[in-house]
Amino acid sequence: MQREPLFIIKIGGHVIDDGSQLASFVKEFAALPQKKILVHGGGKIATAIGEKLHIRSVYSDGRRITDDDTLSLVTMVYGGLVNKGIVASLQAHGCNAIGLTGADGNMIPAVKRPVKETDYGWAGDVASEKIPGASWKMLMDNGLVPVVAPLTHDQKGHMLNTNADTIASVLAIALSSLYETHLIFCFEKKGVLEDVNNEETVIKHITPQQYALLKKEGRLFAGILPKIDNAFDAIRKGVQQVIIGDARHLAALISGDSGTNISL
Amino acid sequence: MQREPLFIIKIGGHVIDDGSQLASFVKEFAALPQKKILVHGGGKIATAIGEKLHIRSVYSDGRRITDDDTLSLVTMVYGGLVNKGIVASLQAHGCNAIGLTGADGNMIPAVKRPVKETDYGWAGDVASEKIPGASWKMLMDNGLVPVVAPLTHDQKGHMLNTNADTIASVLAIALSSLYETHLIFCFEKKGVLEDVNNEETVIKHITPQQYALLKKEGRLFAGILPKIDNAFDAIRKGVQQVIIGDARHLAALISGDSGTNISL
Repeated sequence: MQREPLFIIKIGGHVIDDGSQLASFVKEFAALPQKKILVHGGGKIATAIGEKLHIRSVYSDGRRITDDDTLSLVTMVYGGLVNKGIVASLQAHGCNAIGLTGADGNMIPAVKRPVKETDYGWAGDVASEKIPGASWKMLMDNGLVPVVAPLTHDQKGHMLNTNADTIASVLAIALSSLYETHLIFCFEKKGVLEDVNNEETVIKHITPQQYALLKKEGRLFAGILPKIDNAFDAIRKGVQQVIIGDARHLAALISGDSGTNISL
Repeated sequence: MQREPLFIIKIGGHVIDDGSQLASFVKEFAALPQKKILVHGGGKIATAIGEKLHIRSVYSDGRRITDDDTLSLVTMVYGGLVNKGIVASLQAHGCNAIGLTGADGNMIPAVKRPVKETDYGWAGDVASEKIPGASWKMLMDNGLVPVVAPLTHDQKGHMLNTNADTIASVLAIALSSLYETHLIFCFEKKGVLEDVNNEETVIKHITPQQYALLKKEGRLFAGILPKIDNAFDAIRKGVQQVIIGDARHLAALISGDSGTNISL
């Protein structure tokens, strides 16, 4: 059966924090004719508001520990300020966006991360097999465009702070039985670069074989490795392709004229 | 044609600010078997967070002026913290709640209040004839229970701070062509009281004739008059009945065993 394409596009803090970049992204996203879902991260605004509220960010191994105050902060900022700002902007461009957290419609049930060495607090772990694909399809079949904040819930009354990259991947995997899912990670570079300081060295296509070679020869910067590992994981679980590139070239990322395409 | 009953229930700040009262309300709301929509106000939490962020509340004639900072504040607090907290709690009780502002799905298009004597800033005016009834029906037909924050949008990219009582009324009027709508305003008293200091003096039923008499004889406290005026306005525009009473007795309000029933 021919599955309809669905584009799941993740934008991070660097787009959200830059008003003019966000405005231009929103305009381009609204104009995409395909079925689409936007997943957004947080941005520095949460840290800035947290400081004013004297909520101290605590990190362990680069991951934020979500204590009670931090959970309130991210619920306000990601679920309210950032999410509704994007929704209102998309609506102004004629895109019928609907803002969602994982709690809304129980769209992304999650579990509080189990405590092992570290207690991450109110952090959510998600699994693609728990996603109610029919609910997502129902909203999209009715012309709605989901805009997802990086928040889920534990089905016991608590919101959970959840990594936006992970949400995007899990959605793309879960919905791959209903759609031909394309997962697009926007970040601050044009794509995966051979030389991290040279934007002209975008690697256009990475297969598992090429990836092994690139890693062996040390031609990839460390920060990109988890993204590529996650991309291959998503592809093995049913996602058609993963594209990594710059949010400023969204249409070109989708047409294949920009960014790095990761596939088998 | 027999219309299915729909209960539109509005809770205000006094319920939201009191954790145990909110928890018990949420449990009772979740258990209602009928079709239902929850509209919530803001609560003191917005003022408290605003003070920490050094956002000064400016009022004119008892109405908050919504400047840029205040709009960010209420979008965060009402649309994020309060709305998602209620949604997550309802989900824990098996109620498939979905949090909405008027921007989400363009469910409540509004206009920025025109400047006459006072510039209210980013305040939204809503009109029942603009509400897309089919969109509300679609969500409810799919088993979703809308939880509405007191925020709308101007369809030009801005969120708008909007009175929750007004949103509840406008929804009840707009949806009365599809449902037999029952509008329930929860406030801090058991109902409309003849003696504002005596909770045992609830007036069980108010018709326009009785209302004229009660007003003439000065037997109603001033604060309740706009609520009753708005109730009769909603009823004249198609709402089946308006009930005013205490959030702690939700099931009894619906069964008619508590509160004040306003009808023609």
